[in-house]
Amino acid sequence: MFSVTVRDHMMIAHSLRGEVFGPAQRLHGATYVVDATFRRASLDADGIVVDIGRATDALRAVMARLSYRNLDDEPELAGLNTTTEELARFIADRLAEGARAGALGDGARELDGLVVTLNESHVAWASYERAL
Amino acid sequence: MFSVTVRDHMMIAHSLRGEVFGPAQRLHGATYVVDATFRRASLDADGIVVDIGRATDALRAVMARLSYRNLDDEPELAGLNTTTEELARFIADRLAEGARAGALGDGARELDGLVVTLNESHVAWASYERAL
Amino acid sequence: MFSVTVRDHMMIAHSLRGEVFGPAQRLHGATYVVDATFRRASLDADGIVVDIGRATDALRAVMARLSYRNLDDEPELAGLNTTTEELARFIADRLAEGARAGALGDGARELDGLVVTLNESHVAWASYERAL
Amino acid sequence: MFSVTVRDHMMIAHSLRGEVFGPAQRLHGATYVVDATFRRASLDADGIVVDIGRATDALRAVMARLSYRNLDDEPELAGLNTTTEELARFIADRLAEGARAGALGDGARELDGLVVTLNESHVAWASYERAL
Amino acid sequence: MFSVTVRDHMMIAHSLRGEVFGPAQRLHGATYVVDATFRRASLDADGIVVDIGRATDALRAVMARLSYRNLDDEPELAGLNTTTEELARFIADRLAEGARAGALGDGARELDGLVVTLNESHVAWASYERAL
Amino acid sequence: MFSVTVRDHMMIAHSLRGEVFGPAQRLHGATYVVDATFRRASLDADGIVVDIGRATDALRAVMARLSYRNLDDEPELAGLNTTTEELARFIADRLAEGARAGALGDGARELDGLVVTLNESHVAWASYERAL
Repeated sequence: MFSVTVRDHMMIAHSLRGEVFGPAQRLHGATYVVDATFRRASLDADGIVVDIGRATDALRAVMARLSYRNLDDEPELAGLNTTTEELARFIADRLAEGARAGALGDGARELDGLVVTLNESHVAWASYERAL
Repeated sequence: MFSVTVRDHMMIAHSLRGEVFGPAQRLHGATYVVDATFRRASLDADGIVVDIGRATDALRAVMARLSYRNLDDEPELAGLNTTTEELARFIADRLAEGARAGALGDGARELDGLVVTLNESHVAWASYERAL
Repeated sequence: MFSVTVRDHMMIAHSLRGEVFGPAQRLHGATYVVDATFRRASLDADGIVVDIGRATDALRAVMARLSYRNLDDEPELAGLNTTTEELARFIADRLAEGARAGALGDGARELDGLVVTLNESHVAWASYERAL
Repeated sequence: MFSVTVRDHMMIAHSLRGEVFGPAQRLHGATYVVDATFRRASLDADGIVVDIGRATDALRAVMARLSYRNLDDEPELAGLNTTTEELARFIADRLAEGARAGALGDGARELDGLVVTLNESHVAWASYERAL
Repeated sequence: MFSVTVRDHMMIAHSLRGEVFGPAQRLHGATYVVDATFRRASLDADGIVVDIGRATDALRAVMARLSYRNLDDEPELAGLNTTTEELARFIADRLAEGARAGALGDGARELDGLVVTLNESHVAWASYERAL
Repeated sequence: MFSVTVRDHMMIAHSLRGEVFGPAQRLHGATYVVDATFRRASLDADGIVVDIGRATDALRAVMARLSYRNLDDEPELAGLNTTTEELARFIADRLAEGARAGALGDGARELDGLVVTLNESHVAWASYERAL
């Protein structure tokens, strides 16, 4: 199994709903350093998993929908408790939609899976892995 | 599949038994930067894998049993060759016991697995993964 | 010249005032991984720059005043454009006040200087250095 | 499941064939920081996955065949499009051959798998995982 | 004293002249992860050292002149032994020219100095510091 | 001003004397990831600060005197409270002696200074800087 990972980041404000979050129920924010990993059982004719330029652009496009925003006010996240885990899934699902729509090129239809990791600090991170 | 990871560290002395360890058979020591990863197929009602505060406390509690000690003299490690791999398993097993005893909250009973990684330097690390 | 550095982090929301900030004029947020460096020409009788436990506590105490907050609403930051540079100075000045008030112990009166670095992502950081 | 990882690096020149590579079709180069991960279901009698000294030497030996070279001129890579993915597989396959030939010691015959990750920058990396 | 640092990278081929370089006299290559640090005694009216967007663009523009190239064939480097140290100076000098020409905005005329660090692997890096 | 840094590591046991050290008065240990920085105002005829191969060997030679040892029992450290700060000075002084004795080559007589940083964990490090 092969994989390729690209890294980008976003800076957002949000608050979390639920007593379990303690002080993070207040409006605060985070830098998420986001790693998107694309998995594939065999390489394409060029010897790659995915065009790394297109993968980088696809990740940046998803970041641009969230970056420099207060996620509490974003219509497309309405009703979502924007935990690190939920944001990892949201980003992975948007990347998967893009891949199906051709954003990663024709070869990307051979991708087997996707992992998105959000690093929220030097001591905590979360991931979501899905088939593609 | 979702995962959440928290990081802590411990500083210990120990020696290793076996010719394969060469100079590490002498009493020496290590800083282990320890990453504990909790895995779960679906999120709980709050949208999380585990309460990250409780996960951090649970890891710190295990670290506290070993930190600033000479592992060669610790009764609970008697007979164990305290390699990085064995310490990863020891820590993972203690975290698993804690989870079963409720240290991570009720929701943590839905956790599927656990990975503990011990980073012993900038060029070497070891992991142990188990079901939970 | 000797130095000791300790690391902590905070997660905050804020907005920036000024056209130069582009989309960062909107309410957004950041994780700041904060490094506080203490400098001293010679070591104390124990062979240290500063008690690292006290230094860690002093940094954590400053972080606690800002963490999980919307800095736009914090009275003690009223009127301040909370850029990474200004926050580095704010934190360094609070640490300096603490040192003068004895928070770092008597020996800390021998400290020569202080550097505070705020890492805002994997590709950008800012520092402020001052005498002490 | 246990794993042990060791890190080394190599600095090479190469060019890539295929329009998808854009400017990387020109002769350029890379530092690859290479992580070799050895996996095993249970530990050996010494409590380890593999002798970390031998694992480090085995990785260094593979690096030495490529390091400080123009990969476009290397006979053993003739015909290969030396993408990060293909190089990860090339290195993993050489490590697997070495393991079978005894380079990692007798115990290494119990190894279950191998992952090789090539970090090509702070924002991109690729992996290849295989059974052993 | 304040500073702001931005990070980018380039991937190049080159060879080095001189027996001291051993195998690096052969054509090989490197990824340089490049940190450009801008220093200033006091902040501007917006509370910043430099517009971080402009600083990022200025660094990227210098990288683009070298990236995905064989430095042995670049006319603007003719006669230069392209060691990590010399490349750090080359990049710093180009950034300084850009700053004087207004690429960093009017406020950048108040900058006091510049440091460029080239990270060539996880175990080696070089810096050049100059006044501005 | 130019600088070049090389990184190595050592794993040691020790105990610290003084109430300020709390639990670190017990026998424990550390991995120190050690960065040795060599500074020089102008480059030599080859365009370098120092032969990086020789610098790496010189650092490794100092590490070898301490690595995999209990520092409490080392004659050459007798009477020294082996804090991170003191160890940074010890290593820097040994590197300086080596440089004067020619271990870094003739050109190294032009070196202006030396900084040694010991990273003891992901959240703490100490440095010592001296003229050369």
